[in-house]
Amino acid sequence: MSKSQWIWFPGDREIWLGNDFNNRRTERGAMFPPFWKQDSHWQTVEFSKEFTLLQPDTLHIFVEGIYNFMVDGKLQFGQPQTWHLEAGVHRLNIKVHCLSAPPSLYIYGERPDCPANTDTTWRVTCEDKIWIDENGVAHGSGIYLEPGHWPHCDDPNTLPSQFELLQTVSLNAVSHRPVQLEEGHADMLYDFGKETFGYILLHQAKGAISIFYGESEAEALDREYCETLDHLQLPESGTDLYQISGSKAFRYVLVVGQVEKVTMLYEYLPHDEATSGSFTCSDEELNRIWQVSAYTLDLTTREFMMDGIKRDRWTWSGDAIQSYLMNYYLRFDSEAVKRTIRQLRGKDPVTAHVNTILDYTFYWFNALGDYYLYTGDDNFIREVYPRAKTLMDYVLGRLTDEGLAIGQPDDWVFVDWVDFPMHKRGILCFEQILLYRSLQTMQLCANIVGDHNRNYEAMAKALKTKTDQLFWDNNKKAYLHAIEEGNVLNDQITKFPNMMALLYDFVDSARSKEILDHVMLNADVPAITTPYMRFYELAALCQMGKQEEVLKEIKSYWGGMLQEGATSFWEKYNPTLPPSPKGSDGIGRAHLEMYGRPYGKSLCHAWGASPLYLLGKYYLGVIPTQPGYRTYDVRPHLGGLTWMRGAVPTPFGPISISADAQTLTVIAPPSIGEGTIYWGDQCVTLQAGQTITLTLTGER
Amino acid sequence: MSKSQWIWFPGDREIWLGNDFNNRRTERGAMFPPFWKQDSHWQTVEFSKEFTLLQPDTLHIFVEGIYNFMVDGKLQFGQPQTWHLEAGVHRLNIKVHCLSAPPSLYIYGERPDCPANTDTTWRVTCEDKIWIDENGVAHGSGIYLEPGHWPHCDDPNTLPSQFELLQTVSLNAVSHRPVQLEEGHADMLYDFGKETFGYILLHQAKGAISIFYGESEAEALDREYCETLDHLQLPESGTDLYQISGSKAFRYVLVVGQVEKVTMLYEYLPHDEATSGSFTCSDEELNRIWQVSAYTLDLTTREFMMDGIKRDRWTWSGDAIQSYLMNYYLRFDSEAVKRTIRQLRGKDPVTAHVNTILDYTFYWFNALGDYYLYTGDDNFIREVYPRAKTLMDYVLGRLTDEGLAIGQPDDWVFVDWVDFPMHKRGILCFEQILLYRSLQTMQLCANIVGDHNRNYEAMAKALKTKTDQLFWDNNKKAYLHAIEEGNVLNDQITKFPNMMALLYDFVDSARSKEILDHVMLNADVPAITTPYMRFYELAALCQMGKQEEVLKEIKSYWGGMLQEGATSFWEKYNPTLPPSPKGSDGIGRAHLEMYGRPYGKSLCHAWGASPLYLLGKYYLGVIPTQPGYRTYDVRPHLGGLTWMRGAVPTPFGPISISADAQTLTVIAPPSIGEGTIYWGDQCVTLQAGQTITLTLTGER
Repeated sequence: MSKSQWIWFPGDREIWLGNDFNNRRTERGAMFPPFWKQDSHWQTVEFSKEFTLLQPDTLHIFVEGIYNFMVDGKLQFGQPQTWHLEAGVHRLNIKVHCLSAPPSLYIYGERPDCPANTDTTWRVTCEDKIWIDENGVAHGSGIYLEPGHWPHCDDPNTLPSQFELLQTVSLNAVSHRPVQLEEGHADMLYDFGKETFGYILLHQAKGAISIFYGESEAEALDREYCETLDHLQLPESGTDLYQISGSKAFRYVLVVGQVEKVTMLYEYLPHDEATSGSFTCSDEELNRIWQVSAYTLDLTTREFMMDGIKRDRWTWSGDAIQSYLMNYYLRFDSEAVKRTIRQLRGKDPVTAHVNTILDYTFYWFNALGDYYLYTGDDNFIREVYPRAKTLMDYVLGRLTDEGLAIGQPDDWVFVDWVDFPMHKRGILCFEQILLYRSLQTMQLCANIVGDHNRNYEAMAKALKTKTDQLFWDNNKKAYLHAIEEGNVLNDQITKFPNMMALLYDFVDSARSKEILDHVMLNADVPAITTPYMRFYELAALCQMGKQEEVLKEIKSYWGGMLQEGATSFWEKYNPTLPPSPKGSDGIGRAHLEMYGRPYGKSLCHAWGASPLYLLGKYYLGVIPTQPGYRTYDVRPHLGGLTWMRGAVPTPFGPISISADAQTLTVIAPPSIGEGTIYWGDQCVTLQAGQTITLTLTGER
Repeated sequence: MSKSQWIWFPGDREIWLGNDFNNRRTERGAMFPPFWKQDSHWQTVEFSKEFTLLQPDTLHIFVEGIYNFMVDGKLQFGQPQTWHLEAGVHRLNIKVHCLSAPPSLYIYGERPDCPANTDTTWRVTCEDKIWIDENGVAHGSGIYLEPGHWPHCDDPNTLPSQFELLQTVSLNAVSHRPVQLEEGHADMLYDFGKETFGYILLHQAKGAISIFYGESEAEALDREYCETLDHLQLPESGTDLYQISGSKAFRYVLVVGQVEKVTMLYEYLPHDEATSGSFTCSDEELNRIWQVSAYTLDLTTREFMMDGIKRDRWTWSGDAIQSYLMNYYLRFDSEAVKRTIRQLRGKDPVTAHVNTILDYTFYWFNALGDYYLYTGDDNFIREVYPRAKTLMDYVLGRLTDEGLAIGQPDDWVFVDWVDFPMHKRGILCFEQILLYRSLQTMQLCANIVGDHNRNYEAMAKALKTKTDQLFWDNNKKAYLHAIEEGNVLNDQITKFPNMMALLYDFVDSARSKEILDHVMLNADVPAITTPYMRFYELAALCQMGKQEEVLKEIKSYWGGMLQEGATSFWEKYNPTLPPSPKGSDGIGRAHLEMYGRPYGKSLCHAWGASPLYLLGKYYLGVIPTQPGYRTYDVRPHLGGLTWMRGAVPTPFGPISISADAQTLTVIAPPSIGEGTIYWGDQCVTLQAGQTITLTLTGER
């Protein structure tokens, strides 16, 4: 058997798939593509390898695209599908051209471990710059990279463009009921029992059919304002089974027209439960919160990690960095993280911030640092470093003369969806702290690849000094909001910069405590109402040891959504809204509207799943302290629970934790680095494969 | 009738077509793509227009790609094909996504001159950067451009990707003869009488067929070394008519296999004889040279202006700038020029020189200046200026500390194919003079678009001063060759920098005369053997008034090729080669080899057609002096001919010239600017539409 893989130009498959992915979004039947530039794969690339064959072998060659085949410097006729090589040193150069999908190559030899087998020891370039002078002598100066590949994309008879990342399974609705009688048939409302995603299947349908989708019952029933819908014209003679071409997010569908039965194909990215994270505890509501969080993250983790599965359906860097962090505590699907990072970055030239948003560019960098910490995968850092550098060049070219991040006129400055007045132009303290973290991450990456031409660390230090000078108010013990146009200090205090200062090691422990007391626990500071920023808020509180308070918050906020009928977590939730009419799904209508549209809010939004991260990191307490779990801490914190049990995935398999008020048991997977368990006042080293049980000795 | 056009993102159709075009090259049956990066069209673009409709109208919408349709800010369901609009002010925004070809749009209204008709008053962007805030308010900062379009690409029922620029016509071979008897059939050699281009048609063919192509008889007969060939496997039952899928260049084809008859489809870019240039004179050999030059340029002017039609089949900037200049005296096909300029430039980021060649980047700029001088088309300058600027940024970023052009390790420095030893690394004087001209051209373009942020003129002046200091030898009265690595002056004298100094106004008239005498007419300076650099050499001599000498050279050099049996002009010709065995086509075999391959030389190479330019510009003597023939000179020069007649095309139609030793008649087309005729010591103004006949009054 061959161990070959399909290989391609690194990052190009994500760019190609991302264009498909991001263009699937619809808005009431109209396609809705992104508003930033969409890059393309290289249409012509060259694959090459030099190797020594110990015995003669026959190569089998599979290509997506048209190609040429050069053996030992000699171009061969046509597009050979097999090639016999004698023993000896050989060089293969294969140029592949393909417009419709990334040019890709798969070669295997008939002997085991043939060195010509395509894998990451091959090299690929989009410009070999090889020219032949008048004497027939070749000169070249191409930049050769390690090719891209995906696990399981290794069937030579399936072109990579046909390779399916996702799987489907058929599901029935849990109930249906007629809502209106029309001529000869009833409009039927189907309820699939919870938020779901996939393709509606119509059984025995004919004629004109309309389908109105709803994440809520109210939405599906509202033909004028539901966000997604389909109008079809099927043959009057009828079809046995018709599958809607576009995937959709919904719990309910209202089907208008002559249809005997409606089912669906649920579409999902497979995962392995055995290597996944888990969490159960003495609090049933919290267990349900964890389960619904996991379901929310699974629904939004697909070809890429997307934000919301109904409306947005794009990759967003600020959402994605949270999905990545949750993922490190749920599925540890590094491939999904890498795919999303590559897709978000796109190609040079950089003509806008990631997703056009200033902060989202910074999150893109910061996600690299997180990825490296959790996985220790320096290969990926080496792969993306060139594009990280050009993105940072773009950032640095748009700073103020003083080196501060500022929203240029064509930048979107997001921070958060806020309900209180907050100015977003000018120099925001929040953005400086994100940039500080990005510069530190770039220094980390530069160290990994050995690039000594930039001193990002020095830039970070200078930025920190300047930020402290400009924004720290030593009376209020808080970072102030912004310097607005005209050099006017806006002394508003929000949690945004202050919690990032806590999380991104921007402040020492004394100042951390001041921020905790004067900002994070200060009731006069405006509350955060999106799960997006609650992610950082609650993480910051946990980091400061406030697990008991945070647990109450989780139960109140996410528990609040569950009580409102949520079956997946939402884009935004305001617990203080007055009661409003509810559908049979229990959701008050006032919770559904956003962006000025009655069903504009996404009811399944990745950033809603943050309890996965919080419970894994700050309650089960597993935190890598050296890249790839070379060392890690286990600092369990019950936060008021009677007991908890769970697992945190790592590159080596899950770490198991079981704790009650007295006893802690931790099981380390084989091959992992050295852990340090903190339990009460005990501090114990945990070796790979070891099980340790600790009992509290003193009072706590 | 509608006056709508298909519109797309400017330049994208050329980039898309260029990838197809440049990947058609083959080498003995293997595809042979370029060695520089190939860019892609934007896959998602937005078209928009705001307009006032005086009466209601119905729009008809045609799109290449999937699309959405926004009317007055409201997205409509699905992909409407017609849309009714009431009278009033309207705004259309249409986003189109297409992977396989540039997203394109065609709209026409039913009323005459509907303002919604797609034309260049629409706007297009690849990133509108329009984001919606939490209150549903839209913010945008896209850069909107004038869309691209092509003349005649205006049939709504033909998608632009299906639009054919080229036409075909069926031709028979002029003769054929068996060359070898095989089992049951004879291998047949078909002669199409002259160099040609298109698709071989096999009549009544069956089984295995091989076709060996030759620009010369020798090549077609040499199955082992001919540059292009096809191997086919047709049904044993036979086919009536089989068309080879790939176009090829050839005069001869050797067909091996069972075929009753072989014909071809000649493929060509149509042109209008009535608006073309022409030249006839008292010298029959010169007439034949002009005719074969015209045929050579027509064969190489296709989707783009390519170099050679057999082997290279790519666009090359150094070749193209000469094709453009010849074209201004033959077909004045501005569209072909624009297509080639756009294709050569590609997209940002710039990662290599144009075609990877330092000098070819400079020619790309210089061609812009030529284009503007001949056409006066400032729209096109505005279109390409942003990409000209980023290309110049690339150039400036790779100069020496002293601001001099140098071949970096990954640059190809071409200059010319030379037969004498010539060092090409280090700081070449030749490259400085090309860069000087490029900087001047950029200043011209910056003035047209009103970009006052760069002072290219100052850079050009500084470069000129430095170049004169470093390279002008006042004893030898010549520009010396180079400063090599280690700051060593290479005092070789070649014609290359010196003739460019003459042509690019780098020197005053006194120094011009010195260069003429000490370099251009100096027999000790190595001769130029490519038509490529003979173009500049002979132009420089003509510019210095050496028409009689140049005419002799043309007759000797191009006449020499004709005597060798050329039916189109070659990539390279060395008149001093000793005689070698000839085929029945009369071509000595020694003339065929190049690049170390027996048939490596291209026998139909655009740069071989330069007599078109020389005869039009320096003998008929028509030279624009203000952009787009706002003013122009007519300076006829018989160069020893008894008489000459001809036409030079302009944007307003051809200028006709007829001259003998005494009498000159010039006819100006309507609407052209003011011409100045120089004849003997007379200097007369010529108005649009006017005919002037002058007779020499004094002796000459």
